[in-house]
Amino acid sequence: MAAARARSEARRADILRAAFEVIAERGYRGASLAAVAERAGLTQQGLLHHFPSKEALLVAVLEERDQWDTGGTGATGRAAWRLDLLATLVEYNAMRPGIVQAFSALLGESVTEDHPAREFFTHRYTQVREDLAGLLRAEFGERLPGGLTPERAAPLLTAVLDGLQYQWLLDPEAVDMPSAFRDFLGLLGAAEAK
Amino acid sequence: MAAARARSEARRADILRAAFEVIAERGYRGASLAAVAERAGLTQQGLLHHFPSKEALLVAVLEERDQWDTGGTGATGRAAWRLDLLATLVEYNAMRPGIVQAFSALLGESVTEDHPAREFFTHRYTQVREDLAGLLRAEFGERLPGGLTPERAAPLLTAVLDGLQYQWLLDPEAVDMPSAFRDFLGLLGAAEAK
Repeated sequence: MAAARARSEARRADILRAAFEVIAERGYRGASLAAVAERAGLTQQGLLHHFPSKEALLVAVLEERDQWDTGGTGATGRAAWRLDLLATLVEYNAMRPGIVQAFSALLGESVTEDHPAREFFTHRYTQVREDLAGLLRAEFGERLPGGLTPERAAPLLTAVLDGLQYQWLLDPEAVDMPSAFRDFLGLLGAAEAK
Repeated sequence: MAAARARSEARRADILRAAFEVIAERGYRGASLAAVAERAGLTQQGLLHHFPSKEALLVAVLEERDQWDTGGTGATGRAAWRLDLLATLVEYNAMRPGIVQAFSALLGESVTEDHPAREFFTHRYTQVREDLAGLLRAEFGERLPGGLTPERAAPLLTAVLDGLQYQWLLDPEAVDMPSAFRDFLGLLGAAEAK
């Protein structure tokens, strides 16, 4: 039983990895279950055993991606090291363009009509803005050195994270994503950076 | 002759408007020439008379979109009013979600493999970063109040513009895009904003 479960989990991980690759290359709308199955070395029937639909696979991909992210815990007690951790996350992202590419393609598609990822992203960004505001509050208090409240700085921090990814994916030689992100953190604490 | 040309130009404008709508709804990969033709009240043959391929139509859409943007002129003499104009452009964008939606969907797709818009966006962002750096230099000189050079601030300004659009499209009630953008301009000139 334990061996069977381990085998099933390994298979599931293979499928998710294949799905990330295919979505990075073609987007979600351009991806097919047949292409994901082939990439994972499975029949389509075998894939459907693990994920009953293309949408179910998408949800799993999005949840997997989000585990590495800031969302969810909302912990503010450890905010000081978490703001630094955010810069480290950006450095880490710069070493895995495929994952960033899949995420950025999905975010772009999510704003089109009736996209199955739209609700996920809408909810995710509400959560991310809340978490980042908490993090900024723990770091800076009710007012950042540049003059903004944590609630007004949080959408900007989120926007910089996403926007830099597009520029970096399109032209990695021209845009140093981790260094640009640190520049932005410097702006938020501008009094020191000056 | 003049009447025929005017008719042809009006028809072309109809097609472009229809293409924006269809791309906003379905993305480029999800869009079909048949759907665009139907939306514009033409046969597919009639559409092909104006745009010989789906890719030619995409190029026209991207060029049309860019006319309203900062790219191209590189003029730095009028930078003071142009930085303010940028905030006005964001306000204007907030009144035309369909155009922003089409652009954001295309940007997202452009990072997938072999996408026909990829080269356009890569080139566009090089140009936009250059223009914005020139604009910031004319406004602030070689060093912004927050401590960055114009070249280091430009990718952040670009990222905020793009990133805010996604958050706003997903949740227009939660994200006030023009006001958030003005907050960021305040951060760039942080010495005053404090």
